[in-house]
Amino acid sequence: MQDTNCIFCKIVLGQIPAIKVFESDTALAFLDVGPLAEGHVLIVPKEHYSDIRKITPEELALVMTPIPKLAAAIMRATGAQGLNFLQNTGAVAGQSVFHLHFHLIPRNDSDGLGYRWNAGKYAEGRAEELRTKIMAELA
Amino acid sequence: MQDTNCIFCKIVLGQIPAIKVFESDTALAFLDVGPLAEGHVLIVPKEHYSDIRKITPEELALVMTPIPKLAAAIMRATGAQGLNFLQNTGAVAGQSVFHLHFHLIPRNDSDGLGYRWNAGKYAEGRAEELRTKIMAELA
Repeated sequence: MQDTNCIFCKIVLGQIPAIKVFESDTALAFLDVGPLAEGHVLIVPKEHYSDIRKITPEELALVMTPIPKLAAAIMRATGAQGLNFLQNTGAVAGQSVFHLHFHLIPRNDSDGLGYRWNAGKYAEGRAEELRTKIMAELA
Repeated sequence: MQDTNCIFCKIVLGQIPAIKVFESDTALAFLDVGPLAEGHVLIVPKEHYSDIRKITPEELALVMTPIPKLAAAIMRATGAQGLNFLQNTGAVAGQSVFHLHFHLIPRNDSDGLGYRWNAGKYAEGRAEELRTKIMAELA
């Protein structure tokens, strides 16, 4: 099902143009129009899911199938030394279009991009508490 | 196949302890010991692949299968409003352990994390050139 108000659904339906680089029955990949780097690609399921929590595991698997080849192709085509594969869930995480999408962002030395990586450390026992909570939610 | 010098292979083999939150035949998820936020989880294939270009599509699909439930469980367990799902390929992209791993990073307002999002714009014709290059590499 598509959402008629969703910009990515409109791209899937051909109602808005996009520079497509890959298409399967399940997924569509196209250049981000506001690229963080040349060759910044988005891949989306053709069906509308707001974020990664909502897609079925089976459909996520199909969306992921092209990723190894696509990541390698983008890096070769752009001459990038690295690549970030990123999905944001929720506005606080940077999500701006609420149709599940994965970014493939070519990376190079001193490109000024990257994640603010402020690694912390758990207090004694806190990691075990979090494990218990996460596993309870999974069960 | 495991790599005897790889820290994540050692975790998979039980030679180094980890706070595990999920395990299947193919994948293992555990708390990052240097968390960017409480409940920051890594999920890895049990087999050793250096990055996302090297894993087979079939195995990647199996590693991804738990992600929708796991992302939701981590958000509920930590009370996070959002989540970043991130994989880094190459040192320039922030990869420090060269065993393919995906980060699940709970996000909240003013947590000081996030990607430096310096969106650009393509010059006339440049996006089409990149499409041609990427599709040539995919073919």
